[in-house]
Amino acid sequence: MAPQYAPSLRSRLFPLLICLQTSFIVIFLFCVKYDHHISDDKLLYAEFQDVNVMVVLGFGFLATFLSRYSFSGSGFNLLVAAMAVQWALILNGLESWYHRGQIIINLRSLVIAEMCAASALISIGAVLGKTNPVHLLLIALIEVSGFVLNGLILQTYLRVKPLYCTMLLHIFGAFFGLMMSWVLYSEDSEQQHEKEKIHRRTGLFSLLGTLFLWMFWPSFNSVLVDPNDHQRKLTAVYSTYLALSVSAVTAAGVSVLSSPTGKFNLVHVQSSSLAGGVAVGVSMSAVREPWVAMTIGLAAAVISTLGLRYIRPHLLSAFKCHDTCGVLSVHGLPGILGWLAHLLLQLADSDDLTTAIRCAVFNICTLNVTLSLSMALGVIAGMLLKWNFWRPPQEKKFFDDQAFWEFPHLAVHK
Amino acid sequence: MAPQYAPSLRSRLFPLLICLQTSFIVIFLFCVKYDHHISDDKLLYAEFQDVNVMVVLGFGFLATFLSRYSFSGSGFNLLVAAMAVQWALILNGLESWYHRGQIIINLRSLVIAEMCAASALISIGAVLGKTNPVHLLLIALIEVSGFVLNGLILQTYLRVKPLYCTMLLHIFGAFFGLMMSWVLYSEDSEQQHEKEKIHRRTGLFSLLGTLFLWMFWPSFNSVLVDPNDHQRKLTAVYSTYLALSVSAVTAAGVSVLSSPTGKFNLVHVQSSSLAGGVAVGVSMSAVREPWVAMTIGLAAAVISTLGLRYIRPHLLSAFKCHDTCGVLSVHGLPGILGWLAHLLLQLADSDDLTTAIRCAVFNICTLNVTLSLSMALGVIAGMLLKWNFWRPPQEKKFFDDQAFWEFPHLAVHK
Amino acid sequence: MAPQYAPSLRSRLFPLLICLQTSFIVIFLFCVKYDHHISDDKLLYAEFQDVNVMVVLGFGFLATFLSRYSFSGSGFNLLVAAMAVQWALILNGLESWYHRGQIIINLRSLVIAEMCAASALISIGAVLGKTNPVHLLLIALIEVSGFVLNGLILQTYLRVKPLYCTMLLHIFGAFFGLMMSWVLYSEDSEQQHEKEKIHRRTGLFSLLGTLFLWMFWPSFNSVLVDPNDHQRKLTAVYSTYLALSVSAVTAAGVSVLSSPTGKFNLVHVQSSSLAGGVAVGVSMSAVREPWVAMTIGLAAAVISTLGLRYIRPHLLSAFKCHDTCGVLSVHGLPGILGWLAHLLLQLADSDDLTTAIRCAVFNICTLNVTLSLSMALGVIAGMLLKWNFWRPPQEKKFFDDQAFWEFPHLAVHK
Repeated sequence: MAPQYAPSLRSRLFPLLICLQTSFIVIFLFCVKYDHHISDDKLLYAEFQDVNVMVVLGFGFLATFLSRYSFSGSGFNLLVAAMAVQWALILNGLESWYHRGQIIINLRSLVIAEMCAASALISIGAVLGKTNPVHLLLIALIEVSGFVLNGLILQTYLRVKPLYCTMLLHIFGAFFGLMMSWVLYSEDSEQQHEKEKIHRRTGLFSLLGTLFLWMFWPSFNSVLVDPNDHQRKLTAVYSTYLALSVSAVTAAGVSVLSSPTGKFNLVHVQSSSLAGGVAVGVSMSAVREPWVAMTIGLAAAVISTLGLRYIRPHLLSAFKCHDTCGVLSVHGLPGILGWLAHLLLQLADSDDLTTAIRCAVFNICTLNVTLSLSMALGVIAGMLLKWNFWRPPQEKKFFDDQAFWEFPHLAVHK
Repeated sequence: MAPQYAPSLRSRLFPLLICLQTSFIVIFLFCVKYDHHISDDKLLYAEFQDVNVMVVLGFGFLATFLSRYSFSGSGFNLLVAAMAVQWALILNGLESWYHRGQIIINLRSLVIAEMCAASALISIGAVLGKTNPVHLLLIALIEVSGFVLNGLILQTYLRVKPLYCTMLLHIFGAFFGLMMSWVLYSEDSEQQHEKEKIHRRTGLFSLLGTLFLWMFWPSFNSVLVDPNDHQRKLTAVYSTYLALSVSAVTAAGVSVLSSPTGKFNLVHVQSSSLAGGVAVGVSMSAVREPWVAMTIGLAAAVISTLGLRYIRPHLLSAFKCHDTCGVLSVHGLPGILGWLAHLLLQLADSDDLTTAIRCAVFNICTLNVTLSLSMALGVIAGMLLKWNFWRPPQEKKFFDDQAFWEFPHLAVHK
Repeated sequence: MAPQYAPSLRSRLFPLLICLQTSFIVIFLFCVKYDHHISDDKLLYAEFQDVNVMVVLGFGFLATFLSRYSFSGSGFNLLVAAMAVQWALILNGLESWYHRGQIIINLRSLVIAEMCAASALISIGAVLGKTNPVHLLLIALIEVSGFVLNGLILQTYLRVKPLYCTMLLHIFGAFFGLMMSWVLYSEDSEQQHEKEKIHRRTGLFSLLGTLFLWMFWPSFNSVLVDPNDHQRKLTAVYSTYLALSVSAVTAAGVSVLSSPTGKFNLVHVQSSSLAGGVAVGVSMSAVREPWVAMTIGLAAAVISTLGLRYIRPHLLSAFKCHDTCGVLSVHGLPGILGWLAHLLLQLADSDDLTTAIRCAVFNICTLNVTLSLSMALGVIAGMLLKWNFWRPPQEKKFFDDQAFWEFPHLAVHK
């Protein structure tokens, strides 16, 4: 007989958390200093807060939609974000530490660290409910390392701009998560999980998270644009805002069209409303006209909604890859669409054929490196997580808060 | 036998959404440019975000209070806001397009567009739950057009200041919505809708929306004040903040006083706590002392709470006008109170009788134009919506998410 | 037979609210003016809004965790905050009124008033669910008066800096609340209140409040730092952010370790994640290195989690002091830890023994004055509240919204 209770994480999670946290403090003790140079850009603090709200609250509450897994969805999000930000601060500062002997903390480095944490949170979306917190922490460490490495490779060998590298977080996170979920898939979980469903009340919490992401996405895309180039910064804000508006309208339309009963699907509407922000984020350096941003938003929402409606079920049955939050359709495909839009807009801007071909080759290499690295690391991470040492949750405890949270009478209040 | 299922919106909503959205993109393609002039007022972005949060999240979650209609309340709010903002950007830019051949997008025009969207969302509050999304989109288009037209008339013929025109959004939206609801009223719906009730959990979501409106209202009122006149801008902030504080206290007091059992009524407390912000918004250009703002807040909360407790039921029985969110008491009456306060304060400031009379006449004309136009357009919009082509929801599907949203087992979870 | 219904508050609450509110308006009429001096620090408005969000939304929704008391928790929070801010504006301005004949309102005075309101809201956390709104208003008035008096004494006799005085709000509020709860404890309430439990859905609202506090705490700690000293202001931001991150990780770890089944406890995780913010808030003027802030965050989370797990039950059984929100462990102990860290860091910085001893004596006196005054006033407030004139709720109506809110069919929906 299999045990009735979920395996206790006490002997795994506490040592892992304390070891990591004390190591981080020791590293900070020896290497990290606050920035003593005073930045002129006072506005950045407000934008940093917007990004912070998106990462902690937006992603956290977006993940509450599973009816019986909402505490884990939002609680583990905070835990992973807090850990991933510290790790990303260290990794991003390695170069500065190598050259100057210390890592500098300022608002800009905090924002970049939050972005790295966001890419880890996207990956986690694909395996949400099928993992335990120990898994999630390991995923976050590996994913952030891979994402930083990807940026380093792209910047060193392909001279890609840092901002563009950061914006590839959607593609990197989504494909990392998908491959991990593919490796973790076990044959006997073919039956539909009865707990994997949305509930009225938790649906509203999830909508709340979505709205926070939707509202603050213009800050997310514009925050790292050079603060001295106000024009480009504001263009990023306007483009993201317009793309998101068009996405929200289009997602609603396509959701109604693709439903046999002509009704909205809450998950599709909320996920696909964000697709415009993802696509514009990747392509924004080439977007200069409002209608371009709006067209990208429209295309992203169409792809995303159709992906959630038609690709996601096939991914499960044909490729044995279970994607809890639909990260392929919410981040992966819109991200690739954004990459394509970026490429096409650059080609349209280029004067002669040589530049155009060079530009195309560079862009294709960039995408290839990102996809290969994310998928390879995703497979490696998935294999590591299969190790029984981490006490994976039993199949029947998937999508269930009860495995991880003390609650009085939890079972009673359905 | 009437059909058991709600009529499908597939053949109505999708074409409407796609046609509107593609037309907007085409209009943007030919007419709209980003502002290439760099504004000095960097703070505006933070205030724009505050207004954005109020419109998308505040109004959206305020509308979740109906126990079985919370997804529609908040979801349709996003859809309507996204559409109305684009439409308002175009309409507000018509003058600039006429003179200079292009419409300029900047933070200020986005904020004004959000304000127009807010006035449409207020109107929708009066018919919430008794309409379908096609209706809501049509209402938004008509209301925004009417509101922009109202501003144009007032500015051209009465030389009213643009800011004051914008602040009339509460009055315009409320009376537009009321007349629409009056026209839409059907005799057989006299029995109380059993689904039109508040529930504990959705009540908290509604409170959340209220709090966001309450917290960011100082930004809403001050954002469009000339950024070079810091003094007036901060005065608007302080006045709104104080008026809202007094409103919250007074609404609680009057709610307890007017209850036979001496208890608070959640809907009254949350709606009337906002009344001070409405009243100060309309009158703020004449408010210069803290106690004036506080007195206006007190009077607004008293009127609003009493309106919700006593006028709203009579409106239904005597005037056959059903006001789902109580927009008359939350926006209409406090708005008129603000107008009155503005008039009285201007009279008190005027030196001689001639100025005073002229000022009074101008103010009365302003109110008259706004009320007439909003009510006339509300009647027209209501008659348009009665057309069966739009597939109105059946009486028994009023206030029910099930008519519009795909949910697994929705009926099961109460 | 005891009465079946909760005593009506109509004859107590309405007169109290209206008298207080009209008195405040009269005081504002004669004494309060808006600041006509234009501040250079435009950013302050965004930070003021962050603090406003923390006080109104963060504390409000943190208090929704009691399954059947969530409306009261968040609704009374708004009422008390709105009243306490006005009272604090008056009290904090008394000195200026004495010298210059008027009280000035500006963003800075609003922020300080919000901080005073926060200290009252912390006190209320200890007696939440066992009091009625009349009690809460009286508590707020007494607590704010005491806290302002404490600041005055410390600044006058011990020359403590105003910012440090304000940051003692956690210690003052917590011990005031604890003593009040101790005085109010009645012997017959020894049986566990069956309504005093957390519910899945309300737990998520509470988590939402926690996240808002967690996200905006850097603003809370840094807002009052001299705006011209950017370096110190940003150091406060970074230190708070890092301490909170470490707190979140550590709280999760210690919660799992101290649980017999190796599970997280939601209340512990959310409360203790905030402990780092409290501790760094008190000690921040001496924190200059990232690792120091992180170590303080780690220690605060350990103390806070262990306090919630082990001290809180003993406090009830041994000291007859029932602490609804665990303010001792969330604000009291981390506050004292912050005080200790501040003392130790100052000692480490001091050059010679004389300075060190003087510094230690001053710090110990500061803590002693704060603790004595808060505890003495807490006892006085508790005795005042015992007066039956205020119609205290019956024991069996504790933790129950039904005693205070009109709801249709409240009892029916579980």
